[in-house]
Amino acid sequence: MAEVLNKTGLTALDELCVNTIRFLSMDGVQAAKSGHPGMPMGMAPAAYALWTRHLRFNPADPHWISRDRFVLSAGHGSMLLYSLLHLCGYDLPLEELKKFRQWGSKTAGHPEFGHTAGVEVTTGPLGQGISNSVGMAIAQKYLAARYNKDNYKIFDYHIYTICGDGCLQEGVSGEASSLAGHLGLDNLIVIYDDNHITIDGETTLSFTEKVADRYRAYGWNVIEIGGDGHDIAALDKALESAKAQTERPTMINFRTHIGFGSPHFQDTHTAHGAPLGEDEIKVIKNNFGWDPEKSFVVPDEVAKSMGQCKTNGQKLQAEYRKMFDAWAAAYPELAKELKEALSGKTVIDVSKFPKFDPATPIATRSASGKTLDALMPSMPLVVGGSADLTPSNNTHFKGAENFQKNSPTGRYIRYGIREHAMGAIMNGIAVSGIIRPYGGTFLVFADYMRPAIRLAAMSHYPTIFVFTHDSIGVGEDGPTHQPVETIASLRVIPGLLTFRPADANETTAMWKYILEYTGGPVATALTRQNLPVLDPAKYPNMKHFNKGAYVLVEQAKPDVLLIATGSEVQLAMMAAEKLAGENIKAQVVSMPCWELFEKQDKVYRDSVIPPAIKTRVGIEAGVRMGWDRWIGDNGEFVGMHSFGSSGPFKTCFEKFGITTDAVIAAAKKSLAK
Amino acid sequence: MAEVLNKTGLTALDELCVNTIRFLSMDGVQAAKSGHPGMPMGMAPAAYALWTRHLRFNPADPHWISRDRFVLSAGHGSMLLYSLLHLCGYDLPLEELKKFRQWGSKTAGHPEFGHTAGVEVTTGPLGQGISNSVGMAIAQKYLAARYNKDNYKIFDYHIYTICGDGCLQEGVSGEASSLAGHLGLDNLIVIYDDNHITIDGETTLSFTEKVADRYRAYGWNVIEIGGDGHDIAALDKALESAKAQTERPTMINFRTHIGFGSPHFQDTHTAHGAPLGEDEIKVIKNNFGWDPEKSFVVPDEVAKSMGQCKTNGQKLQAEYRKMFDAWAAAYPELAKELKEALSGKTVIDVSKFPKFDPATPIATRSASGKTLDALMPSMPLVVGGSADLTPSNNTHFKGAENFQKNSPTGRYIRYGIREHAMGAIMNGIAVSGIIRPYGGTFLVFADYMRPAIRLAAMSHYPTIFVFTHDSIGVGEDGPTHQPVETIASLRVIPGLLTFRPADANETTAMWKYILEYTGGPVATALTRQNLPVLDPAKYPNMKHFNKGAYVLVEQAKPDVLLIATGSEVQLAMMAAEKLAGENIKAQVVSMPCWELFEKQDKVYRDSVIPPAIKTRVGIEAGVRMGWDRWIGDNGEFVGMHSFGSSGPFKTCFEKFGITTDAVIAAAKKSLAK
Repeated sequence: MAEVLNKTGLTALDELCVNTIRFLSMDGVQAAKSGHPGMPMGMAPAAYALWTRHLRFNPADPHWISRDRFVLSAGHGSMLLYSLLHLCGYDLPLEELKKFRQWGSKTAGHPEFGHTAGVEVTTGPLGQGISNSVGMAIAQKYLAARYNKDNYKIFDYHIYTICGDGCLQEGVSGEASSLAGHLGLDNLIVIYDDNHITIDGETTLSFTEKVADRYRAYGWNVIEIGGDGHDIAALDKALESAKAQTERPTMINFRTHIGFGSPHFQDTHTAHGAPLGEDEIKVIKNNFGWDPEKSFVVPDEVAKSMGQCKTNGQKLQAEYRKMFDAWAAAYPELAKELKEALSGKTVIDVSKFPKFDPATPIATRSASGKTLDALMPSMPLVVGGSADLTPSNNTHFKGAENFQKNSPTGRYIRYGIREHAMGAIMNGIAVSGIIRPYGGTFLVFADYMRPAIRLAAMSHYPTIFVFTHDSIGVGEDGPTHQPVETIASLRVIPGLLTFRPADANETTAMWKYILEYTGGPVATALTRQNLPVLDPAKYPNMKHFNKGAYVLVEQAKPDVLLIATGSEVQLAMMAAEKLAGENIKAQVVSMPCWELFEKQDKVYRDSVIPPAIKTRVGIEAGVRMGWDRWIGDNGEFVGMHSFGSSGPFKTCFEKFGITTDAVIAAAKKSLAK
Repeated sequence: MAEVLNKTGLTALDELCVNTIRFLSMDGVQAAKSGHPGMPMGMAPAAYALWTRHLRFNPADPHWISRDRFVLSAGHGSMLLYSLLHLCGYDLPLEELKKFRQWGSKTAGHPEFGHTAGVEVTTGPLGQGISNSVGMAIAQKYLAARYNKDNYKIFDYHIYTICGDGCLQEGVSGEASSLAGHLGLDNLIVIYDDNHITIDGETTLSFTEKVADRYRAYGWNVIEIGGDGHDIAALDKALESAKAQTERPTMINFRTHIGFGSPHFQDTHTAHGAPLGEDEIKVIKNNFGWDPEKSFVVPDEVAKSMGQCKTNGQKLQAEYRKMFDAWAAAYPELAKELKEALSGKTVIDVSKFPKFDPATPIATRSASGKTLDALMPSMPLVVGGSADLTPSNNTHFKGAENFQKNSPTGRYIRYGIREHAMGAIMNGIAVSGIIRPYGGTFLVFADYMRPAIRLAAMSHYPTIFVFTHDSIGVGEDGPTHQPVETIASLRVIPGLLTFRPADANETTAMWKYILEYTGGPVATALTRQNLPVLDPAKYPNMKHFNKGAYVLVEQAKPDVLLIATGSEVQLAMMAAEKLAGENIKAQVVSMPCWELFEKQDKVYRDSVIPPAIKTRVGIEAGVRMGWDRWIGDNGEFVGMHSFGSSGPFKTCFEKFGITTDAVIAAAKKSLAK
């Protein structure tokens, strides 16, 4: 092809393509009467060049395991992505672009993973996408280290991320970027849409740091490109340089103009988050030589040119497939392992579980550690880690090596004191669909990573959040470290499973459930302090763990139900024993996972919490909220009503009135109603 | 005084003082069998020099408004602070140090604001203290700009903060530090305890970025001091340089050794978070020439030397008082304003409230904005802001100027896209006890700042968290931006008041309550979409807003209770009207603040939700958790059971079944029980 490139590296046809992206974006937002046109208008040239000249993908197979990943961290610019997906031949018809942000459309307000083909990760909440990208880059490194052999590059791709000022102001991106620099993730390439504008106005209002220098301090390769967002020759060069990196992630700082081409709104925050208006769009179309009366226009030559992406992609993947098949023949064991991983099916062999002596109390965090020790050696596609609380979280398993720049086969990630990044990075690993991440911190610090937990729940990422130190049982560290409201705050998140096992055996059962379940994220609440071990031989209903709640101590005709979770199940059992001495029959229910219990049928639920028995006590060393659902109008609650306090944990339980005696008193109070 | 300084700037007496701090810290942790000895051992020289040579304070009056502030951002090193407080003459007897981390002691596991005299802010969760410090520095700048006149320096102090690797890895500190650099907070001086060790091991595991360069990129003055943590001559010089700054905050990167002096544990993570053991402490005492058999020893000369802090402090404050009195005489109006502010009493003049036309629907975020417009001009000690959502949050009030480097009298802070820093900075402003901060973001992004909200609640900071866009009413932005679980997640936090007003008039009543209340933090949940205005003349019970819930539409003998909050109150009212047509008497309860309602006496509570009326419907465009408490065993709930979806907000309400018809159906279902 003999293309005539202008000084910025774009042909006339390229520019027509770029403008098509711009107008589709403007038209989409205008039709929705809602959305963010400014970013796509400014970034269309860069995104177009990236997608048509660099990104390796096959629109016909959005799940091709070796495709380059594209992450729109600035998720509000979703029309940019939808326009590209449509023009490049993904399964996203023009009709869907016309239904931007409408009920039931494939073009949600912000890109949603699993909802729209080609969307690699859910973005919108700022800072998440770029941090997910770090996880995606880690996943590529690990997968390449495990599966690539000789000339067989089974996992051979880059992660390309577009982010804006918002993403870079958010602390989570700083955390993740620092780790990316440390790990030398040369497969990560971020294009920073440096448009000098945020919702409040110019970035000079609050953001005058030297971003490039900051990223250099993180250990990144930083390339700055000035101009007006059209110097694609420079961008191409920068991308080539980025792809050639072998030590460092790359940030390309690309100066653009938000709302480019809008006579009234370019370089203003007005262009950011609202439709430009019919009139303004007409003026722009006129200025660009387009028919101002038409919307959602894709010129034939653009359709043809960008449609090449599909042909090219099919060719790319066909070549890949040949290599893959040769690799699979040469390495059948690896191929089998990979195939099984991709099927998403895991069966945990319970014979491998550690055995716990009913006579020896053990903390559930320790039982969890022992379970990981037993299971992990034969689960090469589960990658652990902790936000610098490894010795406390018991997340490191025997023999696990660190994942580092020079040891990408390592299966233990040292996230540093960066809970939020850990959450977002784990989500980025989880979307691989192959590697399963788990990572630990104290339960109370779930708050630090909550936005990542929320996105995992919304997008059904199978991320495993391991939280330990789950109540005032933390003791001396005091209220800053004692979660009292955290379990409740996790239970409110739709789609998240929160487990609070009562002992070591419930902990192993939990891990079996978690590792076999890939429907979404899970969170654990494990104790710091030792707990008695429940003997499954003595309590056969423990086999019903997966139902979320079960009758641990059964009564033919119970007088009262004692419903507890985690470390408080022992109190319920001791209270039941003492109550028996007073001829009060107390049925004890262990309720390790509310969400699973809610999914059971009414017959089972009624068998565990019989509707006729209104005399009930809920026991949990946390706040009451949510418990009324289970204890009902006549129920009593034994738990926390305030933040905790420093002291030895037994003193804390005593002083806050979470004791066997308190359970007995509550039972009698409920009986008296 | 003719002191003999060694090459690092310490006399023999100084070194004895330093070692006293070290041994008090080791002994405290050992006695508690819990805590963090390593940090105090490494940082004792720096902290000692800072407190005795630079910090201006009066232990006899920990509330002196012009004292220098000291923040131990690395809150786990609490014994360092407690040792200093004790030795410098604060009200913290040696007996309390012996009760470190015990129930009821003044020496909590991590420093707690309001619990121990001299503790400026609650720390422990990493990254918070340094970010609070930015708020404290902003407060000083504002107060100085408002009250200092000529030679009267009424507010003349620095904020000194000690932080470690953890604080600097946390994203929140990056957000806050970037803003601090932007604002040129030259009154902020951070000493970075650069000890190369975290809980997991050496910082080389995960933290190899160039911290100094990063802070330079933020616009800070960075001074690096090598050595072993004893080069106090260099530290003194650095602190003098820092105090002389007029444009930039300062970070002093001070290389130290964790667990300094411990033969077995120095420079290891073992020294970080556990007692060293009796034996090790004895060896160290021996090595340092101390009696290994004695604990909690304060040599007389140390007591005498450090006791000077008290005398010096009293002298300092006496001089200050003279100046203050002269200022008060010269500027009686300002003095009166300041005195009133310090009293903590505010009375809001309801006559200033905007009037809302019952015929014109208005979003509660807009009503909130109008209320701020009306009240703020006469409330110079309330400082607003937003995390870059000003036009959406309606947090900017008429005439408010930006708080910037060159306009420190500005009362509107542009926090940038940094929700977490905003929360922590607001907390730092709030502890001034003089300035009241409010700051806005979308409700869904409360998650980003949750650790700051939690600390505000625990420490009773009167921080005002303004959250708007409070439900699926957000509409087209989709589930990433539609809070469904966020209100519930706020209600679980002990001590936080969460308000969800039903209309414009409840919104003004809310602001009256908030601005008069200083007992702790509050959060608002305001709508994006317009809501009908309730006419107080027609609904006289609206005067009971402060009780958290009240009967909006009363029935002599109600058949059913419809209990709703915020935008769903209108549905309850419309349903009640329709039900009346079917001869079903529905009493409508508006419940804008659960926490306030819970504080009412039983008589009032029973008058609003009569126990005898079991037929109830709860209505809220959020998850159910918590509602069972109010609707009871026979109640029904109309709300969300999943994340939301993109679409026009009316469609979202329709599709998710939150409608008048759904309320009617639920009422009938409850009646049928």
